[in-house]
This record gives sequence, structure tokens and C-alpha cells, in this order.
Amino acid sequence: MAERTEEQHTEKMKKLQAAHDKMVATKTIEKGLLIVHTGKGKGKTTAALGMVVRAIGHGKKVGVVQFVKGAMATGEKAVFDAFPNQIEFKPMGEGFTWDTQDRARDIAVAREAWDEVKRMILDPSYDMVLADELNIVLRYDYLPVDEVVEVLKAKPEMTHVIVTGRNAPDAVVEIADLVTEMTLVKHPFREQGVKAQAGVEF
Amino acid sequence: MAERTEEQHTEKMKKLQAAHDKMVATKTIEKGLLIVHTGKGKGKTTAALGMVVRAIGHGKKVGVVQFVKGAMATGEKAVFDAFPNQIEFKPMGEGFTWDTQDRARDIAVAREAWDEVKRMILDPSYDMVLADELNIVLRYDYLPVDEVVEVLKAKPEMTHVIVTGRNAPDAVVEIADLVTEMTLVKHPFREQGVKAQAGVEF
Repeated sequence: MAERTEEQHTEKMKKLQAAHDKMVATKTIEKGLLIVHTGKGKGKTTAALGMVVRAIGHGKKVGVVQFVKGAMATGEKAVFDAFPNQIEFKPMGEGFTWDTQDRARDIAVAREAWDEVKRMILDPSYDMVLADELNIVLRYDYLPVDEVVEVLKAKPEMTHVIVTGRNAPDAVVEIADLVTEMTLVKHPFREQGVKAQAGVEF
Repeated sequence: MAERTEEQHTEKMKKLQAAHDKMVATKTIEKGLLIVHTGKGKGKTTAALGMVVRAIGHGKKVGVVQFVKGAMATGEKAVFDAFPNQIEFKPMGEGFTWDTQDRARDIAVAREAWDEVKRMILDPSYDMVLADELNIVLRYDYLPVDEVVEVLKAKPEMTHVIVTGRNAPDAVVEIADLVTEMTLVKHPFREQGVKAQAGVEF
């Protein structure tokens, strides 16, 4: 950026502030959001985890269902354990047989995990529900997307629901309030042979 | 996705697993990463926060310096407070005068915040350092990017450093190990008049 004079800087900052104030003044609605984190980049689950942490910090009740093993793991578990009355964590992904290739069993596991999500979403005592890596399961047709969309549309007005995973189905993006795509720009795994590390990947 | 037979599914899953195993086997390096979250979308700070939480959960020591007020806030603060021996949180952004337009003072505040980051990065007892919204300060030329790059390059080998904020400077992207761009697909603020809410935005 070219050097600016003090006056130009002050002028620019005043304009930014005025634009920001005007924008904020028009935003008055408070409602639960359907939030989708998708794309091939990193940070989909991690950003959802950040929201869970914020919600906990505000005294909210949060439900977390993990559809894929390892996407959420030991690191966050230790922190969740510090707030047992506010967070219900269901790591259902352990049951999947990505390794053993049993499609019928995977569908049953997906169903069981989705039933937990559905229960949490439809129970207004949850302020936030995270369906971590649900998109992956939908991508493999382990659950009917129509049923998922129906439940998401039926969520209580103030409940925030977060759905993560690459390849978010169009039908879910369609009804979402906030969709963020994480795009990979540089990645040490592929480019440098670096392995997954505690605190970063899990 | 078209319906697949059981055999096709099993075949596909086996291939995926083999590819994954092969990929993991080549990744043997463990090292501290320079991680950048940039782009205009949501989730840059939130994903960094998720990593901080994971690191805490693994018993790591983490330093967090916040360059912009409000980017990290009350929600995460309550969670950080539960782990006082592992996290050092410095919310320096309060001092900025985006509202009062005092450039000289903003530069002084940026310097003070950067000095904290520098101290944490160069102290090998920190496993992870988050410079939240540092990119914003660099964008306004409040700090010389050359100096920042020099310190980032001098970080201890095992320390993870996370830099967030839109408009990451090329010089920082250049030396980063992992760069993720968060892209806005849909946003309820602009499209629906929804205001910032506890647990989602702060």
C-alpha cells in the first residue's frame, strides 16, 4: 500500500467507520443460523470447534455429533470435558468402516449418528448443534439428503446448526444462512512431507 | 451421486484407503508450522481458536495476541480462563483508534502488540502462538512487514505460529507452511439483516 498522509488516513478511517456504523444499524434480527463450512481446504471442523467454544463461553448448551473418526479428536475432547454440563459430545465416527468397507454397516452408523443430531436439533434446550462431517456421509448417500433438509428446516428458530464437510449438497447450501468455503492455498502435508500434528490437525 | 453396487463401493473404498495409507506413509516430518488464515470469508479467527483449543487439550502452552478488538472476545475468554496455566491471552486490540482516527497512536499500539507476539514466538516454551488479525495491521502499514517476516522466519523449529486476517501480505504467504483462504459464499448479515450473535460472531 502506498504511503498515505495523516489527513488521507483520517479521512479513510472516518469513511470506514461511517460505513460500518450504517451497516450495523440495519442489522437488527436475531435468529438461529444454519451455518455450512465446506470446500477442500483446512479449517472446516476447526472453525466449527471455535464456534462451539465461543458458545460454551457464553453459557450456551451445545451438542456435537462427529460423523467421521478423527475429524474431532483428543485435543478438543479435553476441553469439552472441562464443561460437562454445557456440552454433549457424541463421537459416532468410530463406527464407520472406511477401513473394512461394509456399506450396510456404514449406513446403519450414519443413521444412528443422524438420529442423535435430529434429537438435538429438535430439542430447543440446545442452543447450538454441530453435525461434524455430515456432508461426507451425504456425499456417499449414506443418508437421504431430503430427510436431512427437512429436519434442518424444522429447527427451532433460535438454534444455531453447523454442518461441516467438503462437497456440501446443493440442497443444504440452498437453505443455509451462512456458507463459507475453505480453499487450500498451500499445504505442508502435500508439499513438504509433514505429518499430522497434535494441536493443529487433532 | 449415481447409485453404486456393493462391489463398486467396496472397490472404491479399498482404493481410497490404499491411497490414504500410501500418502500417510510418506509423511514423517514433525515441525512447527507457520499457518495463515486469510480471505474475506468468516472463520479465520474461529478456526485459529479451534487450533488453540486443540493445543490446550494436548497440554501445550499457547500465547494469543489479539490485534483487533472484538475479533476474539468474551466467549473464548471464558474458556481460556479455565486453563490459566496453559494460555496467555493478550487482548491488545482495545487500544486501537479505528474510531478516533489517531494514526500515531495506532502505530504505537501495533508495536506494543507485536512486541508481545515477538517475545512469545522467540520463547521456545510456547508451543503455539496466535497473532490474531495481524494481517489487518500490516495492511495499514502500522508495522513493517520485513520485520514481521524476519521474526516469523526465526521462530523455534517446533513452534506453531498462526497469523489471521484478510489481505495476508505476499511476503507472509511466501514463507507460510499452510495457507487457507476463507471465501464467503452466503452471509446472513448482508443478505438478511441479521446482527452479530453470541456464540457465532463473538
